[in-house]
Amino acid sequence: MPYISVEEHLPGITGLLEYRKDSAEPIRELTQYLLRGPSTLTEGERELIATIVSYNNQCRFCTAAHTAAADLLFDDDSVTEKVKQNIETSPVSEKMKALLMIAWHVQQGGKEVTTSDIVRAKDAGATDIEIHDTVLIAALFCLYNRYVDGLATVAPPAPEFYKGLAERLVNHGYTRLPQGYDHLKKK
Amino acid sequence: MPYISVEEHLPGITGLLEYRKDSAEPIRELTQYLLRGPSTLTEGERELIATIVSYNNQCRFCTAAHTAAADLLFDDDSVTEKVKQNIETSPVSEKMKALLMIAWHVQQGGKEVTTSDIVRAKDAGATDIEIHDTVLIAALFCLYNRYVDGLATVAPPAPEFYKGLAERLVNHGYTRLPQGYDHLKKK
Repeated sequence: MPYISVEEHLPGITGLLEYRKDSAEPIRELTQYLLRGPSTLTEGERELIATIVSYNNQCRFCTAAHTAAADLLFDDDSVTEKVKQNIETSPVSEKMKALLMIAWHVQQGGKEVTTSDIVRAKDAGATDIEIHDTVLIAALFCLYNRYVDGLATVAPPAPEFYKGLAERLVNHGYTRLPQGYDHLKKK
Repeated sequence: MPYISVEEHLPGITGLLEYRKDSAEPIRELTQYLLRGPSTLTEGERELIATIVSYNNQCRFCTAAHTAAADLLFDDDSVTEKVKQNIETSPVSEKMKALLMIAWHVQQGGKEVTTSDIVRAKDAGATDIEIHDTVLIAALFCLYNRYVDGLATVAPPAPEFYKGLAERLVNHGYTRLPQGYDHLKKK
């Protein structure tokens, strides 16, 4: 049971964002910008960063939600699974391996990111902005994971819940849509 | 030397917020809302939460900046020092001790916050919103600390730098002020 009175039908982060709408707004905007805004990283690659950080923070809700979003964007369930098992042997580009290692180190703590992590990423073609965004996305999910678990929110066990959530995140992004928003849906 | 090309005269978080202004905006807004917005916790108490999290994440820049801000708000340098040494014996209220313990547990990981932490805080008079905000402020500083150290930004050694920064944070808050903002300064 959550430590504070959130609406029972809204599990994980969803209840927290409704609980305090004023703080939710900039959190939604930051997430939308980093995960859906203009970037040379694909939306799937950015969801993969969110997934690996949430997985290593052992945040069940966030891991399931962003795994489902990445799976949908890749149209393939095996990439997230293999990245969770071992970044180095996973079926992603050398640049993404280097960026995922940076994200994993950020999850452990800012000082864990080493010069050799950065050299490896730059050698693999990563730009300063891609490195910046990787660090900030990883840091943002360290916020989310602690917010969600620090208040003991509920993570529904059914995979269908996360599939539905992932469809919303992929089709509508992270910002709040007004009521009657069907005309904004992607075709 | 920072891992990405930030402006040399802007150390710590200041260079990062200039580097990517679009992501900086919601980060500033969230911080302003949580640390300076309407709350039953004082600004000093909220800076104390930022300080204890940054201190335990060993983020030199953030620890020095928020220690200086809290010291200025308390008009006393000894509170932050004693809280860093030992929350339980520090000269803060029982409610603040309980909230600082929650913040410290959030810093270690969301799942480290226990039911007994929450019961203790509620018994000491903490409201749901105070507990929510404590968790979210602690989570936000886990983001900041990783952002600042994950990109190896510089922390100036001189205490005068942080005193100047603290005056700005106390008098103007965390949002960006337009040029020629002198008329907005607190008297």
